Amino acid sequence: MKTLGIIGGMGPLATHDFYRKLIELTPAAEDAQHIPVVMVANTLIPNRIAAWEGRGPSPLPALITAARQCVESGARVLAMPCNTAHFWFEDMARAVPQARFLHIADEALRACPRGDGLPLRLALTGTHATVAMGLYQSAAVRLGMNVQWIDVTGVQASVTAAIASVKAGRIERAVAEYQRALDVLRSAGAKTVVMGCTELPVIAGSVRSGVLLIDATETLARACIAACMND
Amino acid sequence: MKTLGIIGGMGPLATHDFYRKLIELTPAAEDAQHIPVVMVANTLIPNRIAAWEGRGPSPLPALITAARQCVESGARVLAMPCNTAHFWFEDMARAVPQARFLHIADEALRACPRGDGLPLRLALTGTHATVAMGLYQSAAVRLGMNVQWIDVTGVQASVTAAIASVKAGRIERAVAEYQRALDVLRSAGAKTVVMGCTELPVIAGSVRSGVLLIDATETLARACIAACMND
Repeated sequence: MKTLGIIGGMGPLATHDFYRKLIELTPAAEDAQHIPVVMVANTLIPNRIAAWEGRGPSPLPALITAARQCVESGARVLAMPCNTAHFWFEDMARAVPQARFLHIADEALRACPRGDGLPLRLALTGTHATVAMGLYQSAAVRLGMNVQWIDVTGVQASVTAAIASVKAGRIERAVAEYQRALDVLRSAGAKTVVMGCTELPVIAGSVRSGVLLIDATETLARACIAACMND
Repeated sequence: MKTLGIIGGMGPLATHDFYRKLIELTPAAEDAQHIPVVMVANTLIPNRIAAWEGRGPSPLPALITAARQCVESGARVLAMPCNTAHFWFEDMARAVPQARFLHIADEALRACPRGDGLPLRLALTGTHATVAMGLYQSAAVRLGMNVQWIDVTGVQASVTAAIASVKAGRIERAVAEYQRALDVLRSAGAKTVVMGCTELPVIAGSVRSGVLLIDATETLARACIAACMND
């Protein structure tokens, strides 16, 4: 069994959510059957959104340090439960060639159904930055997937409001906003919707989606379990 | 702010429970106000109970490695959310003199009320091994506390059954068993009961205790927050 390195702390609750899913999804009856984990959750890593918008210092040096610390403590598989930070994924991966670094968007897309030759009608819901960075679009190209991206003006405002409401603990408001977004996306033809943000899975059970909802954090946890155990 | 090192994985759910309490109890409005964390959760550490009973190899080398990896990745405060593993606490602490290593029993006892000159009538609930190791009794001596330990024959069987029932997801049975244990301890004069086991806090809200219940994991999390932030 390989040791998993978790580059976390962005934010702490997202890291905690990923770690919980990792434990719950691992087929283990006792401690020793669980995956050994090394986690570096440096909450002082410079703000990713600010850096991406050119308003603050790059988080890359701190991200590379965290990845190296995981590897030095024995990690051979790496995961980073934060969509936005994947903007620096390639530079990080080059700095830790000893480890297999799993990409959250790749794993989420691998969990989507293939369209039997037809394009997969897919929508991404997440923060404005995650969507605008094109992380998932690049991943689809990398994986050679035939995707028709469903994007409708105005949906991002509902998704942003849903995420902010979850963060603020206003669950009823969050469900209403996310329901509105999903209704519009389904009407526009979306069959599968990726929740590319750690807040949305919290309310996924409370919406009537009519689409296949993919939890990116959960798909990353499942991929880590497979990568660490099948060895 | 100092970095916290968590020596975890014994078991993974206990580590997860501690990390959740750490995050929830930290007075933070944004990521950067949370405590930087390095966690080494080596689930392959030799079984602690087996080692203590002389039936298996010592976990000490692996525990020291985990502590050193935390320190090498920047941790200056250390915590280990596993009562049983504290049997090796002193040997571990000597191996990482650069860090301040907080003891779960010390922190649980510090959270107990002092008895105004009278002995504190205290009971410990936990696994058979935790109770038999005398970790909490030694901690009381170390802290100079005047404690009258309340221990009643037969209580351990109820506590053991309660813990096993939580692990098995049989919550109703767990509540009934723990209720029985607390009723006996209160009748015997206990005023404060330490939950020295990570399973018991799960059902603490469902028992009518009539005593002050102290969650050792939570007191350790609070002590870590104070040690890392007040600096």
